[in-house]
Amino acid sequence: MITIETFVHILDLGGTFVFAISGAVAAVNRRLDIFGILVLSFVAGNFGGITRDVLIGAVPPAALTASPYLLVSVLAGLITFFLYSGVDRLRTPVLLFDAIGLSFFAVAGAQKAISFGLSPVMSALLGMLTGIGGGMTRDLLLMEIPQVLRSDLYAVAALAAAGVVVIGHMLGLPYGTSAIVGGTLCLGLRYMAIRHGWHLPIAYLSAQQRAKNNSPDDK
Amino acid sequence: MITIETFVHILDLGGTFVFAISGAVAAVNRRLDIFGILVLSFVAGNFGGITRDVLIGAVPPAALTASPYLLVSVLAGLITFFLYSGVDRLRTPVLLFDAIGLSFFAVAGAQKAISFGLSPVMSALLGMLTGIGGGMTRDLLLMEIPQVLRSDLYAVAALAAAGVVVIGHMLGLPYGTSAIVGGTLCLGLRYMAIRHGWHLPIAYLSAQQRAKNNSPDDK
Amino acid sequence: MITIETFVHILDLGGTFVFAISGAVAAVNRRLDIFGILVLSFVAGNFGGITRDVLIGAVPPAALTASPYLLVSVLAGLITFFLYSGVDRLRTPVLLFDAIGLSFFAVAGAQKAISFGLSPVMSALLGMLTGIGGGMTRDLLLMEIPQVLRSDLYAVAALAAAGVVVIGHMLGLPYGTSAIVGGTLCLGLRYMAIRHGWHLPIAYLSAQQRAKNNSPDDK
Repeated sequence: MITIETFVHILDLGGTFVFAISGAVAAVNRRLDIFGILVLSFVAGNFGGITRDVLIGAVPPAALTASPYLLVSVLAGLITFFLYSGVDRLRTPVLLFDAIGLSFFAVAGAQKAISFGLSPVMSALLGMLTGIGGGMTRDLLLMEIPQVLRSDLYAVAALAAAGVVVIGHMLGLPYGTSAIVGGTLCLGLRYMAIRHGWHLPIAYLSAQQRAKNNSPDDK
Repeated sequence: MITIETFVHILDLGGTFVFAISGAVAAVNRRLDIFGILVLSFVAGNFGGITRDVLIGAVPPAALTASPYLLVSVLAGLITFFLYSGVDRLRTPVLLFDAIGLSFFAVAGAQKAISFGLSPVMSALLGMLTGIGGGMTRDLLLMEIPQVLRSDLYAVAALAAAGVVVIGHMLGLPYGTSAIVGGTLCLGLRYMAIRHGWHLPIAYLSAQQRAKNNSPDDK
Repeated sequence: MITIETFVHILDLGGTFVFAISGAVAAVNRRLDIFGILVLSFVAGNFGGITRDVLIGAVPPAALTASPYLLVSVLAGLITFFLYSGVDRLRTPVLLFDAIGLSFFAVAGAQKAISFGLSPVMSALLGMLTGIGGGMTRDLLLMEIPQVLRSDLYAVAALAAAGVVVIGHMLGLPYGTSAIVGGTLCLGLRYMAIRHGWHLPIAYLSAQQRAKNNSPDDK
C-alpha cells in the first residue's frame, strides 16, 4: 500500500516537473541560453519547496539533498529546450503547467507543514507559499510583476487547496481524499479565472486618485 | 510592570501594522485585487522580521508561529481596502506609515538580535535589516527599485535607531529609554529627509561618465 | 603551513572584496548615495555566501558573525566611492571584478558544502550558487534581469570551477591544486565569453513564434 509520505513525494516531484516546464518555457520565450533555461527550470520547480523548508527549519531543504528534484528539473528543462519549436501555442502551456504545479505543491506543502507541527492556519498558508513561491521567483528573475499578484484567483486557488488538506486533516479524513478534492478545487478555480474571468474585487479609487496614479512621480 | 519581552512584542506588532498598511496602500495604487492587497500587507509587515529570524536561526520565524502577526496584517489590509477611497492623499500615508514602521522594527529587531547573542555591530545591522526588509520586498514585488536604495536617509535612519538601542544596551540603560530615543531619532531623520531634502553625498562622476551612463548598453 | 580552512577563508574574503567592488560600481552608476553604495557592496559581496549558509543550515551565516566580511565590504564600498571619479572605464571593472569574485566564491563555496557533508553534485551546485548569488541579488535590487541569466557562460563558469573542486576532492587531490585549476578555468571561460563571444545554444523558435514574443500581451 502507498503511504502518505510516498504520496506527498510523488505530488512534490510532479509539481516540480510541471513548474520546471513553466520556468523553461518562460526562459525560452525570453531567449535565454540552455543554462539559463535549466536555472529557471530549477528555480521555478523548487523555490517554493526550498522556501517552505527554510522557514520550517527543515535544512538542508529536500530539493538540495534528494537528487530526484534536480534530475526532474533538468529533464523538464531539456525536454522544453529540444521540443519547444514543435510547440506553437506559447502562452497556454505555461498557464496549464503552472496551474497543475500549483495544485500539486499546495496540497503537498500543507501536508508537510502539518507533519512539522505547525498550526492549521499556518499550514494552509505554507501550502499556499509552497505553491506560489516557485512561480513568483521565476517571474521576479525575469523582471515581471509576479503573476500571483495580478488577480486571477491565483494565490486564492492555492490557499483553497491547502485549506482543504488542513480541514481534512482536522476531520480525520484520509489524506488521499483531501488531496484530490483540494487539487481539483485549485484547478477548477484557475480554470474559471482564466476562461471566465473570475476575479476578486479591487479597491474603489475616485477618478481623481486614478489620475494621480497614472502620473507617477516616484520620489 | 511591563517586561522587555512584552515591550519588544508590542513594538513588533505595531511595526507590522503600519508596514502592512504601507504595503496595502501600495497594492491598491497598483490596482491589485483584495488578495494581492493582503499578500502585500503580510509581506511588507513581516518580511523584515522573517528574514532576521531565518538569519539568526530562530526558525520557524515568530511571524509564522504567533498568530497575532497574521491577524494584524490581514486587519491592516482589510482596513485599507474598505477605507481607502476616503483617503485622498496617496503618497503621504505610505511615507508616514513607512517611517513609523521603520523606527519600531529597527528598535525591536536590534533588541532581538542582542538577546540572541549577536555582536553589537551585527545587532545594529540586523535591526536595520528588520526595518528595511519588509519595505524592500514590497517594492521588489511591485517591480520598483527599493525605496531604501533611493537616498533620503532611509537605511541610515533605521541604522541610527538600532545603533542607539545597541549603545544603550552596552551602557546598561533601560531598554524603554533607548527604544524611545532611537525611534524618535529615526522618525526625525526621515522627516528631515522628506521635508527638507537631507541626503547623503553621491559619488562624483565626470560629465563624460555621466553621458556614458545615460546611453546604457547592457552587455 | 596554511590549512584548508584558512585558504577557504582567504578566498572567501577575496571574493567578498571584489564582488563588493562590483556592487559599489553598479550603485555609483545608478547614482545611489554613499549608504546605498555600502548596502550594494555588502549585498553583492555576501549574499551568495549567506544564501549558501542558510541552505546548509550554518546559521547565523559566517558573513553575519565574523566581522572581516563586513569590514572588507565597507572598505570596498568606500574605496569605490572616493576613487571612482578617477576610473574612466565604467563597464570593464564590473565585469573583471565580477569574474574574479565568481571564481573565488565558486571554489570556496563548493569546499564548504563538501565539509558540511553534502553530496558531490549538490556541493558543485552550491558552489555555483555561492558564486552567482551575490551578483544576482545586486542585479535584482537595481531592477535588472540578472547577468547570470543573460548567456555569456556565467553560471557555467561557476559550475565548472565548483565541479573541479568536487572532482578533485573525490580523487583525493590537495585542495589548493583543484582550487587553482578550477578558478583559472572559471576565469578562462568568462574571458572567452566576453572577448570572443563564446555562448551556449538557445532554443530554436519559428519566425511566427518570435513575432508573437515581440508583441507581448502579459496576461
